[in-house]
Amino acid sequence: MDDASPPKWHLAHTTWFFETFLLKPYLPGYRAVDGHYEYLFNSYYNSVGQPFPRARRGTLSRPTVAEIYDYRRRVDEAMARLLGAELGADILQRVELGLQHEQQHQELILTDVKFAFGHNPLYPAYRDRGPAPPTTAPPAGDLGFVRYAGGRVAVGADPAAGGFCFDNEAPRHEVLLAPFALGDRLVSNAEFQEFVADGGYQQPALWLSEAWTRLGAGTLAQAPLYWRCRDGAWYEYRLDGLQPLDPGAPVSHVSFFEADAYARWRGCRLPTEQEWEHAASATTVTGNFADAGVLHPLAAVATGPAPRQLFGDLWEWTASPYVAYPGYRPLPGALGEYNGKFMSSQMVLRGGSCATPAGHVRASYRNFFYPPDKWQFSGIRLARDE
Amino acid sequence: MDDASPPKWHLAHTTWFFETFLLKPYLPGYRAVDGHYEYLFNSYYNSVGQPFPRARRGTLSRPTVAEIYDYRRRVDEAMARLLGAELGADILQRVELGLQHEQQHQELILTDVKFAFGHNPLYPAYRDRGPAPPTTAPPAGDLGFVRYAGGRVAVGADPAAGGFCFDNEAPRHEVLLAPFALGDRLVSNAEFQEFVADGGYQQPALWLSEAWTRLGAGTLAQAPLYWRCRDGAWYEYRLDGLQPLDPGAPVSHVSFFEADAYARWRGCRLPTEQEWEHAASATTVTGNFADAGVLHPLAAVATGPAPRQLFGDLWEWTASPYVAYPGYRPLPGALGEYNGKFMSSQMVLRGGSCATPAGHVRASYRNFFYPPDKWQFSGIRLARDE
Amino acid sequence: MDDASPPKWHLAHTTWFFETFLLKPYLPGYRAVDGHYEYLFNSYYNSVGQPFPRARRGTLSRPTVAEIYDYRRRVDEAMARLLGAELGADILQRVELGLQHEQQHQELILTDVKFAFGHNPLYPAYRDRGPAPPTTAPPAGDLGFVRYAGGRVAVGADPAAGGFCFDNEAPRHEVLLAPFALGDRLVSNAEFQEFVADGGYQQPALWLSEAWTRLGAGTLAQAPLYWRCRDGAWYEYRLDGLQPLDPGAPVSHVSFFEADAYARWRGCRLPTEQEWEHAASATTVTGNFADAGVLHPLAAVATGPAPRQLFGDLWEWTASPYVAYPGYRPLPGALGEYNGKFMSSQMVLRGGSCATPAGHVRASYRNFFYPPDKWQFSGIRLARDE
Amino acid sequence: MDDASPPKWHLAHTTWFFETFLLKPYLPGYRAVDGHYEYLFNSYYNSVGQPFPRARRGTLSRPTVAEIYDYRRRVDEAMARLLGAELGADILQRVELGLQHEQQHQELILTDVKFAFGHNPLYPAYRDRGPAPPTTAPPAGDLGFVRYAGGRVAVGADPAAGGFCFDNEAPRHEVLLAPFALGDRLVSNAEFQEFVADGGYQQPALWLSEAWTRLGAGTLAQAPLYWRCRDGAWYEYRLDGLQPLDPGAPVSHVSFFEADAYARWRGCRLPTEQEWEHAASATTVTGNFADAGVLHPLAAVATGPAPRQLFGDLWEWTASPYVAYPGYRPLPGALGEYNGKFMSSQMVLRGGSCATPAGHVRASYRNFFYPPDKWQFSGIRLARDE
Repeated sequence: MDDASPPKWHLAHTTWFFETFLLKPYLPGYRAVDGHYEYLFNSYYNSVGQPFPRARRGTLSRPTVAEIYDYRRRVDEAMARLLGAELGADILQRVELGLQHEQQHQELILTDVKFAFGHNPLYPAYRDRGPAPPTTAPPAGDLGFVRYAGGRVAVGADPAAGGFCFDNEAPRHEVLLAPFALGDRLVSNAEFQEFVADGGYQQPALWLSEAWTRLGAGTLAQAPLYWRCRDGAWYEYRLDGLQPLDPGAPVSHVSFFEADAYARWRGCRLPTEQEWEHAASATTVTGNFADAGVLHPLAAVATGPAPRQLFGDLWEWTASPYVAYPGYRPLPGALGEYNGKFMSSQMVLRGGSCATPAGHVRASYRNFFYPPDKWQFSGIRLARDE
Repeated sequence: MDDASPPKWHLAHTTWFFETFLLKPYLPGYRAVDGHYEYLFNSYYNSVGQPFPRARRGTLSRPTVAEIYDYRRRVDEAMARLLGAELGADILQRVELGLQHEQQHQELILTDVKFAFGHNPLYPAYRDRGPAPPTTAPPAGDLGFVRYAGGRVAVGADPAAGGFCFDNEAPRHEVLLAPFALGDRLVSNAEFQEFVADGGYQQPALWLSEAWTRLGAGTLAQAPLYWRCRDGAWYEYRLDGLQPLDPGAPVSHVSFFEADAYARWRGCRLPTEQEWEHAASATTVTGNFADAGVLHPLAAVATGPAPRQLFGDLWEWTASPYVAYPGYRPLPGALGEYNGKFMSSQMVLRGGSCATPAGHVRASYRNFFYPPDKWQFSGIRLARDE
Repeated sequence: MDDASPPKWHLAHTTWFFETFLLKPYLPGYRAVDGHYEYLFNSYYNSVGQPFPRARRGTLSRPTVAEIYDYRRRVDEAMARLLGAELGADILQRVELGLQHEQQHQELILTDVKFAFGHNPLYPAYRDRGPAPPTTAPPAGDLGFVRYAGGRVAVGADPAAGGFCFDNEAPRHEVLLAPFALGDRLVSNAEFQEFVADGGYQQPALWLSEAWTRLGAGTLAQAPLYWRCRDGAWYEYRLDGLQPLDPGAPVSHVSFFEADAYARWRGCRLPTEQEWEHAASATTVTGNFADAGVLHPLAAVATGPAPRQLFGDLWEWTASPYVAYPGYRPLPGALGEYNGKFMSSQMVLRGGSCATPAGHVRASYRNFFYPPDKWQFSGIRLARDE
Repeated sequence: MDDASPPKWHLAHTTWFFETFLLKPYLPGYRAVDGHYEYLFNSYYNSVGQPFPRARRGTLSRPTVAEIYDYRRRVDEAMARLLGAELGADILQRVELGLQHEQQHQELILTDVKFAFGHNPLYPAYRDRGPAPPTTAPPAGDLGFVRYAGGRVAVGADPAAGGFCFDNEAPRHEVLLAPFALGDRLVSNAEFQEFVADGGYQQPALWLSEAWTRLGAGTLAQAPLYWRCRDGAWYEYRLDGLQPLDPGAPVSHVSFFEADAYARWRGCRLPTEQEWEHAASATTVTGNFADAGVLHPLAAVATGPAPRQLFGDLWEWTASPYVAYPGYRPLPGALGEYNGKFMSSQMVLRGGSCATPAGHVRASYRNFFYPPDKWQFSGIRLARDE
């Protein structure tokens, strides 16, 4: 798939970021490891030059993995030299951005490996089954709703408040919300199976026109990305291999179109990103993140305050297109290409996933993908008007 | 182009609408003129059946134009019979919807004819030059800005208030607006030429990523849709033929991507649909509409209150993706496919154009097209934060 | 379909041929009717200029049919003036070529109209059922074979022998043929139905690799181009409308791939063009041509010498790729683009069809189309080694 | 590129051939190494099952190279057991076919590696420059022609004559050849540069229509596949890296279209495969093959009988479409898919190349590729009528 890249590309690209935006401009006497890497490992910074075509990344058998690890080692050493000096705030901000950027690609390595392995007939496991998650908590029951009064509420991040945020989370600003309710947990595989069994994929009234056209009147996709039917039983490819579908686990790897259609079928809708953030701001950022080592979403449990699973497990599609906040200003220079230029035709997702490094997300964090994208760890939280 | 249809298709499709949604369900004893028309002239109502492929509409040499006029005549007669009876409010609402729908296709006939003629090497004129517009008013000068305080303002239409509105304009609701300013007229051809001359189409930092990819690093489009360069001079195809480009007239037939890039180049942005509507609600709905017979946008004049040209001349791209208002409810049944199912990946345009029937639009009216679409009469109004 | 053009384009293009290759160079003082026509109605003579894109011919609503008939009238008048003078042999040869060229387009008008009408859900008839063909002759029985001894035989046309021929028929030359046999009539619909019923479209061993790939493992095509299944019964679209499939009539509108797979399934093969020509040279050029007014192939009858139907009814796919004969020389100048430049990836068909003007073909006549092409009146004659 | 596969796929596929066509049917008790390999490493034998999509071979990161070498080792061991027994002639014929098949893929590994490396901006060398070829011989001078009388000559291989041949080389049969002449060596880079400098790529009269359409009026390709222009000088990627273009070496990696256009520009044509074979039958099969370790074509030398370079250096495009010889019979069963099913739309190449294993080719050997294919070691030999 054109959107997925091999792991070694991610390793080289995150290294390239430090070399391009820190070592070259700020480390006196620094010389690029290889002049070609500028071109090969530039993902999309058009201001820096014409990137190597994304769809052909998988064809680069050179440089080898060993050469790329050597590249990383040499850049790491140079970064250590740079960090040994007294650095201005703007340089430190770039270092922070480089680290956040690398965290994003840590997640992409997992999603891209999952895509490659999940479409390989051998269904290889990326890792053996991780440590069994704690199962003492009783499973969550029927999906309920948590109500919010809405009103005039503040959303977004204030860069001046301390702590890192991306430019697209700012400025903090006020919005008006009508009363609403959020599902108290993610939609489960069993619940999504009801939609499939009801012929949800065949009912045009449930689908956005763009989806129905892409779906080819229902013929293209009939299930989440990694569901596989074998002799009448559903399985799911996970990073620990092809496993029987867990009915209680959240349905994952669905597109915005599927999330939207499912919500409509339930008589609900998806939350806006403002509604989601307003609810998430009241909770702590804990959940099933990559550091837990599970690498797939877990069934919700009945303990703890609702709504549950706001953070970790799965990125949650919202009803909000990804656009600029009022008064948005991109970063200056090439770094300004980081977020702002993607503000068309994509939808916002919130909350992080089981593949997101712990500590990377927060209530104001805005992720974004195109409506048909399914290869991210994406799931469904319902919402409704009150 | 796949999006354009021949005039006879529009004639038949609008007729089909009345036959399908009014005559068949409500006129006792009505028999369809031709069972095939159900399939041929259904544009996109998937609930009504699988539509004939849009891209192949141009290949239908049968039924002939004469047969379609006969179809219209027979449906008109049946509609007259239906309207002679006492009708309930829901039926009358459908009649109103059918008339509004036909007005929309009156505009599409003009845009589609313009596309066909404007891509024909003969550049045939659709009509002789219309009556010269009144030119006693002095031309508008440099583009200025009109400031708005923003705050808590109401937008949207209230169906209960009387007067027709589409479901996507409702419900009326309040939003918070920061202080902003709007350009006091549309951007002119001369002003857009400065962007072209400055290499605007070649600067990646000005363009959304999606546009830059489509543009193929600047190779695909280099000008508005109907601009033609002949021996170093710019011409523009209009419905009265290929004419020297009028520097004072508004730049037309630009995509959202071009409008957005131009605004960024000027250090401005596009208005949100809420900002636009707030400004437009304070003015009367007058302007250069189709009924004036000009059929191309006219240069702004210095008379009258600013901002000028909010209505008529050109649809104005806004910065707002086309999504549901809070509490939106689509119409029931197949008519619910009219607006709601298009709420992904499109952008809102406001104000009507020189091809829009007078009386069809209002301040709350929401038109929508995909970001790269250029064949509509679309233009640019600048906005900025205050 | 990109290969098909509207009738008015054919009318204009054949006129353009006379204007370009005769009037402009040879009629003193001649002025082109419209400078744009050079571009619009040039089909493929790259030496004459860049042709208008073939696939967009259907979008040209101007010039109108009336304007094109006027163009023809004016060119006809000028041709009459030219022909009133004493003309050299080379000019007369061009006139002959223009007439032959127009005959080819007379056939293409019929195939293109059939394609448009046959893919229109209304299935309009191009003409009412023609005069019933003579039916006193008893129908042909089971398909038999006629044997030929082969040996050293001459094929091709000798331009010096008198009578028109295209450059690709020359020079006349000798070839060695092994003993062979030809089917004594065309393969019938009933015989092809056996292939369909036997799952011929689903057996990879019957198909050329290129076909199987195009067929998408049997999913794309499952029948000849104009067969339609309605409630379990087969119909065929013909120029007199949608008709029940005539079992005795020759199967028509099959691709080379289908002809080749059918022959393999029967344990036979297709004839080479040399075998076909050797057999056809011994017969007179009579058959069901366009002038008979039937416009679809007729069932073979038991009277007359075998093999029957060599001329008329259907073009017969041969096993021979379309390449140059030994010593082939194209015509000089732009007219050299007529035949030679198409000598790659196409297959030769022989014998003319029910849409070919009588008198247009002969034993040495070589038609050619791409292996998947099905919109011509093409059929199957079997052959085998002896 | 879809036609190229990674080396490990070739290693596995040739192993799969022995497992599928020898071990499974003939070694008692043999159990497949991995049931998935049947699907993953089947290239095109549709009778054996649906192959894994060719274009996705490059995405298979599992099985690993180590696993595939293990697969080879286990199949090699089983083959040793099989070969230890008394085997019938049909089985030995399959062994021979498997070895010939592996030789073909040895060449493909080189062409596919060259394609990957030659499109990698790093231009990695597959191997250091090989041993310098003997250079004592004087270079060949201007291209001359060798004349042949033609007449009734025999071509093709007789399987009963001993020695291996593919089914597509049989049966041996007679053809009539007119007098002709062949270029006495391959066309050189310097000679092809003259074509480029003369604007050969921009002259429609030189090109087959299919090529001109593909070339997009000259915009797609402007040089052989591995030529690269740097600061006005031509370089060529070879398996020993990017090297200055050697003017005396044969022009390589040209398509049939380029070979045909070049020949036309020179007032010549390409030889038919029968002409080529007739000439080659009189010479010994020696030349610059893969075993010499050079891995690129060498400049012709003035010593030895002409025509030179018939074997080795480069596959020579012929004017002959790849079709069955008279009386051709494919192998029975799935092995029958080896050659016959590709007999459409491809052209025959003759003589082997610098990447072909020595001993693999002979005068009757027929290779075949599609007209636009350029990634094989393909070159140009001129011919003309006498």
